[in-house]
Amino acid sequence: SSSTTPITATLFPGDGIGPEIAESVKKVFTTAGVPINWEEHYVSTEIDPRTQSFLTWESLESVRRNKVGLKGPMATPIGKGHRSLNLTLRKELNLYANVRPCYSLPGYKTRYDDVNLITIRENTEGEYSGLEHQVVRGVVESLKIITRQASLRVAEYAFHYAKTHGRERVSAIHKANIMQKTDGLFLKCCREVAEKYPEITYEEVVIDNCCMMLVKNPALFDVLVMPNLYGDIISDLCAGLVGGLGLTPSCNIGEDGVALAEAVHGSAPDIAGKNLANPTALLLSGVMMLRHLKLNEQAEQIHKAIINTIAEGKYRTADLGGSSTTTDFTKAICDHL
Amino acid sequence: SSSTTPITATLFPGDGIGPEIAESVKKVFTTAGVPINWEEHYVSTEIDPRTQSFLTWESLESVRRNKVGLKGPMATPIGKGHRSLNLTLRKELNLYANVRPCYSLPGYKTRYDDVNLITIRENTEGEYSGLEHQVVRGVVESLKIITRQASLRVAEYAFHYAKTHGRERVSAIHKANIMQKTDGLFLKCCREVAEKYPEITYEEVVIDNCCMMLVKNPALFDVLVMPNLYGDIISDLCAGLVGGLGLTPSCNIGEDGVALAEAVHGSAPDIAGKNLANPTALLLSGVMMLRHLKLNEQAEQIHKAIINTIAEGKYRTADLGGSSTTTDFTKAICDHL
Ligand SMILES: CC(C)[C@H](C(=O)O)[C@@H](O)C(=O)O
Ligand SMILES: CC(C)[C@H](C(=O)O)[C@@H](O)C(=O)O
Repeated sequence: SSSTTPITATLFPGDGIGPEIAESVKKVFTTAGVPINWEEHYVSTEIDPRTQSFLTWESLESVRRNKVGLKGPMATPIGKGHRSLNLTLRKELNLYANVRPCYSLPGYKTRYDDVNLITIRENTEGEYSGLEHQVVRGVVESLKIITRQASLRVAEYAFHYAKTHGRERVSAIHKANIMQKTDGLFLKCCREVAEKYPEITYEEVVIDNCCMMLVKNPALFDVLVMPNLYGDIISDLCAGLVGGLGLTPSCNIGEDGVALAEAVHGSAPDIAGKNLANPTALLLSGVMMLRHLKLNEQAEQIHKAIINTIAEGKYRTADLGGSSTTTDFTKAICDHL
Repeated sequence: SSSTTPITATLFPGDGIGPEIAESVKKVFTTAGVPINWEEHYVSTEIDPRTQSFLTWESLESVRRNKVGLKGPMATPIGKGHRSLNLTLRKELNLYANVRPCYSLPGYKTRYDDVNLITIRENTEGEYSGLEHQVVRGVVESLKIITRQASLRVAEYAFHYAKTHGRERVSAIHKANIMQKTDGLFLKCCREVAEKYPEITYEEVVIDNCCMMLVKNPALFDVLVMPNLYGDIISDLCAGLVGGLGLTPSCNIGEDGVALAEAVHGSAPDIAGKNLANPTALLLSGVMMLRHLKLNEQAEQIHKAIINTIAEGKYRTADLGGSSTTTDFTKAICDHL
């Protein structure tokens, strides 16, 4: 069902354990016969003045050209005069929605076995405006910016996602009882979009109540859409329900069909280079990338192989309580293909 | 050990189920021989121009005079031209810290059995400034304000609380990687105070990571201190871990020794007046009030009676899966005294 002309995709292996888990993805994809040519870009050791960050202009151009990419963890180097790598990518590539499916993995036990939800986070504005200042000594303020354009865009993405993925409900998460203007505008936009999707149930949930409900009964939720910081918080909370960021994939959606799938865990410098890292989050992010490319057959095949390997329990990395190396775990997945 | 001159305390029964659960507190306190005279104040049906809210000036004066009070749920009437009742109380009485102990209740099973932490929330500023405006059509902004004074004050409260309650660690929760100035100032203040408490371990945890850790392993936390909105979110999340807001008490701390204990759950209008409400959160908040008044003996006695009644499991209200009325549950607690 897939084209045989190879697709070119950008790969940011990233720092720390990044190169090892990226190696795992390449191995699994090759074994599954995925028709992808990787264009690899590394984080630079020098600030590129055109991006004001350690990401080179060329690496951003690569994603813009290929419209699809996969990204490992990037540790923002400490120091002044440059921007966070993750934020640079989001802003420069206009990656307006961060999508994180979160579901209980069969065979990997947590306190929850009934999680199956999607968080969709506005990824460009809100509390991440970067606008802050000192009013007088000892009094500082930050600006949270909400725009109609960005809110409609992410709401539209969420409802379209729900509709095309057989989901029944979209919950908009907010604190409009306190931030009536900003979160109020966000909700207004969600309501406008909801009107166009009468087949999808729409509800609004205050963020504090949402967090309480999520830990009590996550099965209550289906698709959640929310402003930037709430998305940051709730997507990590949800990842925690099913085992943490080492197991949960994500994909950033930009304008003009750009998609940058991303493992959102850290670069784990303590275990880097030791063949101990768990590549699951990056592999599952790769699967999201394949689905975006409509390579559904290979996506399903690889997804099943990952899930079955974890469920079987024979090969697991140390973070999941096992003693497998990255390469052994990867090999086990390939054997399941 | 307690004085026999009765203490006068303000009581806001509140709306909905408020009067019924307040009745329960009065019954239990009387049975335990607590030397308190209640000065009752109800939410008005008219806006008091002096408070710009449905809370009368007299009711606020009552708390200022008595310096101690207990508050049930208050539903802010819908409409314009007045302020939220809860926020009016916090601002007018300068209730700068909201303290919520959160612990697993023996005999009441949730997915967690090892929770024992305290959230301490800055209660007057941050994202709750109320300062918002529209920049141009479709672009709105909210101001988050952090001050050195309020941050030092709540940090000091948290460390003093830890020290005087045999707690070992204070975690400051923040997002200073994004809001470097506002959350950065909050952290700076926490660090300054931490220096004065070398016996207390101090750590800083980013809010997204904190939520993930809380759902994976809440036993990692002891005392948490944080800006207003993070406190709103995390205290509800933690309440969810042990069963919800119907079971968790809170106390608001003001300047000059003022303390207003409060059940933070809703007014549950659907079951109001039906003798079905669970008074546990208000009762446990009452216990916090007694501890604040140094009526420790009665506080312990009542606390034990509540815990034992729930643990025994014979009398439980519907929200806990039982079929007891409010009055039967209250009687069971009195019988345990
Ligand atoms: C590293 C940090 C800036 C980032 C964020 O806050 O967005 C991270 O938590 C994430 O979720 O990707
Ligand atoms: C009702 C609401 C304004 C309030 C808040 O956000 O502080 C509530 O959630 C609380 O925690 O007391």
